[in-house]
Amino acid sequence: MPTQPSRDLQTFPNPKPGRPFEIAMECPEFTCVCPMTGQPDFATIRLRYVPAERCVELKSLKLYLWSFRNEGTFHEAVTNRICDDLVAALAPRWIEVVGDFAVRGGIHTVVTARHGERPAGV
Amino acid sequence: MPTQPSRDLQTFPNPKPGRPFEIAMECPEFTCVCPMTGQPDFATIRLRYVPAERCVELKSLKLYLWSFRNEGTFHEAVTNRICDDLVAALAPRWIEVVGDFAVRGGIHTVVTARHGERPAGV
Amino acid sequence: MPTQPSRDLQTFPNPKPGRPFEIAMECPEFTCVCPMTGQPDFATIRLRYVPAERCVELKSLKLYLWSFRNEGTFHEAVTNRICDDLVAALAPRWIEVVGDFAVRGGIHTVVTARHGERPAGV
Amino acid sequence: MPTQPSRDLQTFPNPKPGRPFEIAMECPEFTCVCPMTGQPDFATIRLRYVPAERCVELKSLKLYLWSFRNEGTFHEAVTNRICDDLVAALAPRWIEVVGDFAVRGGIHTVVTARHGERPAGV
Amino acid sequence: MPTQPSRDLQTFPNPKPGRPFEIAMECPEFTCVCPMTGQPDFATIRLRYVPAERCVELKSLKLYLWSFRNEGTFHEAVTNRICDDLVAALAPRWIEVVGDFAVRGGIHTVVTARHGERPAGV
Amino acid sequence: MPTQPSRDLQTFPNPKPGRPFEIAMECPEFTCVCPMTGQPDFATIRLRYVPAERCVELKSLKLYLWSFRNEGTFHEAVTNRICDDLVAALAPRWIEVVGDFAVRGGIHTVVTARHGERPAGV
Amino acid sequence: MPTQPSRDLQTFPNPKPGRPFEIAMECPEFTCVCPMTGQPDFATIRLRYVPAERCVELKSLKLYLWSFRNEGTFHEAVTNRICDDLVAALAPRWIEVVGDFAVRGGIHTVVTARHGERPAGV
Amino acid sequence: MPTQPSRDLQTFPNPKPGRPFEIAMECPEFTCVCPMTGQPDFATIRLRYVPAERCVELKSLKLYLWSFRNEGTFHEAVTNRICDDLVAALAPRWIEVVGDFAVRGGIHTVVTARHGERPAGV
Amino acid sequence: MPTQPSRDLQTFPNPKPGRPFEIAMECPEFTCVCPMTGQPDFATIRLRYVPAERCVELKSLKLYLWSFRNEGTFHEAVTNRICDDLVAALAPRWIEVVGDFAVRGGIHTVVTARHGERPAGV
Amino acid sequence: MPTQPSRDLQTFPNPKPGRPFEIAMECPEFTCVCPMTGQPDFATIRLRYVPAERCVELKSLKLYLWSFRNEGTFHEAVTNRICDDLVAALAPRWIEVVGDFAVRGGIHTVVTARHGERPAGV
Repeated sequence: MPTQPSRDLQTFPNPKPGRPFEIAMECPEFTCVCPMTGQPDFATIRLRYVPAERCVELKSLKLYLWSFRNEGTFHEAVTNRICDDLVAALAPRWIEVVGDFAVRGGIHTVVTARHGERPAGV
Repeated sequence: MPTQPSRDLQTFPNPKPGRPFEIAMECPEFTCVCPMTGQPDFATIRLRYVPAERCVELKSLKLYLWSFRNEGTFHEAVTNRICDDLVAALAPRWIEVVGDFAVRGGIHTVVTARHGERPAGV
Repeated sequence: MPTQPSRDLQTFPNPKPGRPFEIAMECPEFTCVCPMTGQPDFATIRLRYVPAERCVELKSLKLYLWSFRNEGTFHEAVTNRICDDLVAALAPRWIEVVGDFAVRGGIHTVVTARHGERPAGV
Repeated sequence: MPTQPSRDLQTFPNPKPGRPFEIAMECPEFTCVCPMTGQPDFATIRLRYVPAERCVELKSLKLYLWSFRNEGTFHEAVTNRICDDLVAALAPRWIEVVGDFAVRGGIHTVVTARHGERPAGV
Repeated sequence: MPTQPSRDLQTFPNPKPGRPFEIAMECPEFTCVCPMTGQPDFATIRLRYVPAERCVELKSLKLYLWSFRNEGTFHEAVTNRICDDLVAALAPRWIEVVGDFAVRGGIHTVVTARHGERPAGV
Repeated sequence: MPTQPSRDLQTFPNPKPGRPFEIAMECPEFTCVCPMTGQPDFATIRLRYVPAERCVELKSLKLYLWSFRNEGTFHEAVTNRICDDLVAALAPRWIEVVGDFAVRGGIHTVVTARHGERPAGV
Repeated sequence: MPTQPSRDLQTFPNPKPGRPFEIAMECPEFTCVCPMTGQPDFATIRLRYVPAERCVELKSLKLYLWSFRNEGTFHEAVTNRICDDLVAALAPRWIEVVGDFAVRGGIHTVVTARHGERPAGV
Repeated sequence: MPTQPSRDLQTFPNPKPGRPFEIAMECPEFTCVCPMTGQPDFATIRLRYVPAERCVELKSLKLYLWSFRNEGTFHEAVTNRICDDLVAALAPRWIEVVGDFAVRGGIHTVVTARHGERPAGV
Repeated sequence: MPTQPSRDLQTFPNPKPGRPFEIAMECPEFTCVCPMTGQPDFATIRLRYVPAERCVELKSLKLYLWSFRNEGTFHEAVTNRICDDLVAALAPRWIEVVGDFAVRGGIHTVVTARHGERPAGV
Repeated sequence: MPTQPSRDLQTFPNPKPGRPFEIAMECPEFTCVCPMTGQPDFATIRLRYVPAERCVELKSLKLYLWSFRNEGTFHEAVTNRICDDLVAALAPRWIEVVGDFAVRGGIHTVVTARHGERPAGV
């Protein structure tokens, strides 16, 4: 049971590949570092996806998110990066990644990236 | 009046078969077992359906959900399994089953499966 | 001013028949009896409708809902019955009746019935 | 600065007539009188509109709503009346008026009237 | 690091120009002055946009909003002004600006301006 | 059954005079007039009391509160006036009257007056 | 298993008589009848008590509350009546009964009766 | 009717000097300036007091709070300053001033100052 | 790392024995069995304690609560049992155990047991 | 302006040393590391104190909390450690430190440490 931060997203076979269905995961324990000031940033990451052949393994997702703990990255970039990595690992029918970041300068920022076309009726 | 856990879903005739209408049921008392670790999982199961000829009997649904208490099953699989069982028992016009699982590893997971096409205007 | 429970729904002329508009009423004080066990059931009844020629009179609606106090009826049946009675009394352009019933057996049930086609833009 | 109740709605020119945009106003301090019993009624009036050439002046709207304080009128009628008066004063592209009335006889009533066609994308 | 109020909105290149995605920012610390009475007004400014080539820099947005602190302007005008300035600086695919103003005369006002066409699926 | 506003508070005998107990009543439908500007004021009146020999009759309380509809009075004065009138009519062991007034000038005011000594353990 | 309304409160021995502890029960499904108008009243009954020798059996409490369904009684009287009946059946160290009644005449009433002295530290 | 910011707090005679009672005022529209950076700070000011001979006039309080708009001051200092000024103007039996400041550096600060001894039973 | 249900509560030394402080833990994932009907019960267990020499280890507490999964026990008894077991394992200065059980028969039950005397100022 | 994590808490003189008053600060952006597993922990730190001669500087507090980002420490220990460090830096009349930690093993833990005696009337 690996317990180190890792960019290597593990997956398992979709248990119901014939039916489009949605998986939603909310991860309030995300932190990275501001590339300008080096200070910590905090966010809740929310993802929703309609799997094709593969689903993301929960513990692996946790280790993946942990891997950003010391990385300097902007809000807009890291949200799209997570979306890209999940697309590469899962090739989902559709995915949405939301980065909901703590207040900075009195401003609360939420970035939403989507990939693919959500199947009708899901 | 059976009071043992049972996979045998009881139904009764739709009292208004000529009108498409929706029945929604929320069941916060669901528990099963993680097939990896053997530890208990907890969830709220929410279902909404548009009946065709048959509706699910409330007490039977309770006994059905109870039957998972000692079963090892993954979040994605059990939500689809409940959807399949209800489709088999009810042959509804449309059904949605949501499994809203307690936090594991700092991550909150919600799985949503649907079957059939929701009639327009319902 | 009648103050007895009554199935006789009183109506008044729509004050603005040329404009499709919506009337929504929430009635948290509804009780009937379970036809299986004889025990009381409790619900909130919510209705929304777009009137045609007639609107339902508020006090009459209250007396109508009171009339179910000692009647044995299932959740799915009574919600559709209220919808049918309002359709018969009002002949509305569109109506929705929601029966939101108190928890039984750890399960919360909400039944939603609709009649007619909701005019576009209302 | 007039400070008497008045049915005379004041307007000012739309500062951005080339762009369809929405103005929403919530007015929780509305009271009129029941025409049957003479007793006070209380409501929150909410309006949303897409202006054409004119916008309603806030203080004037307040004085207009005040003017119903001693008027006997039914829920359905007064909501449509306010909609009509605003349409006459503003000739908006689209308007919605909601009258959300305090509980009477255990029933909470909300009336929603709309006029015009809401421009796409607003 | 400029720390003076400034109308000069700074931008940075969109990190993912090939994917339409949304950025939402909520700024509860906005104040300007009523042009009629000279008294302070307070608002929350919310913006959502789908960037094209450029994104708005957070600190620059804060300084921009600060620049209205002593300016006399009406609710409808300032919300459209902020929308115009962001369109000029960002040329976004789509943008929405909401000005949610504190109660005046017992009335709560929210103005919503949009520009461009929101890409499908975002 | 009187249905006119009236300062004449009706009472009935305390059904359990040997036990100190509390009666709490919340009345969100209160309006009076500002003695400076003549404009309407709105409030929720909340009262809690421990009866001695008499309790206030609910309908009479409603007619009493209605009687302030056209009276000019300040927040601090009217809350104490209601407390005085209830003390005169009920001679309670203890009473608290709260006037919770709608926002004026961006300020929300709540006045709380008490009379008598609350019995220990109630 | 009796399933008829009954004033006969069943009890069972306190499982921990040596330790003062609190049992709280909330019963939102209470209805009785107004003795003046014959119309239904609705309430939530909340009770908290520190048992001495006996605890109230849950199903028996439900049947007891059901027994008021057709009884005409005032808010203040029925709350004290329930308190008296529970004192007679349980002889608790301390008990509190709250009757939280639905809005009548725009007024929301809550009656709170207590008996005995709450042990320190519970 | 003065409408300029002013440190001159106006008062009026306590309408019920013989009864200790509480007046609570919530003022969410407060802004001052950080003395270190010159940037705006935002707060909600809440005050509660038991008057002696004088009460603060609402409009005067609003103008007083406005007078801090361009003043550089720390959170701890300005909350105590407002408390001191109200004590000087009102000589209340007891007063509490709360300054609830917007997030800075990811930290939300609330300062509470009190003066005098709150009379028992108020 | 044991991962079986176990009544054996593990503890660790209080890291600050010289200072009375409070530890609060909320465990929403508790289930046992009704000793009358054999059907599952669900509860949230909340505990607060002031440690003396020992603190309870979190994973051990989880395994302890798991050990009730197949045990038949009444609400009042199991809450006191958990309190007794924690007192035996920790010998705390003060402890409170709350069992907040899911609705049965339309009634929501909360049992609160305490042991020891809470140190002043904690 | 230092912007590195630092255990060196900066203080400034209490601006009102003659008046006992309270300062409350909520810091939702706290993270440390589990000393057993090396995995990240997340918490909200809340502190309230009555200053004596010195107050804690906000930016310094932020850098101090940041300094735990890579430190392995238990919930009970780190909350007491923060309390000790603030006592050493501020010598407050009274202080309370709350560590509110994210769910682990289905259990939510909150640790509360206090030091000194809270002055009466604050």
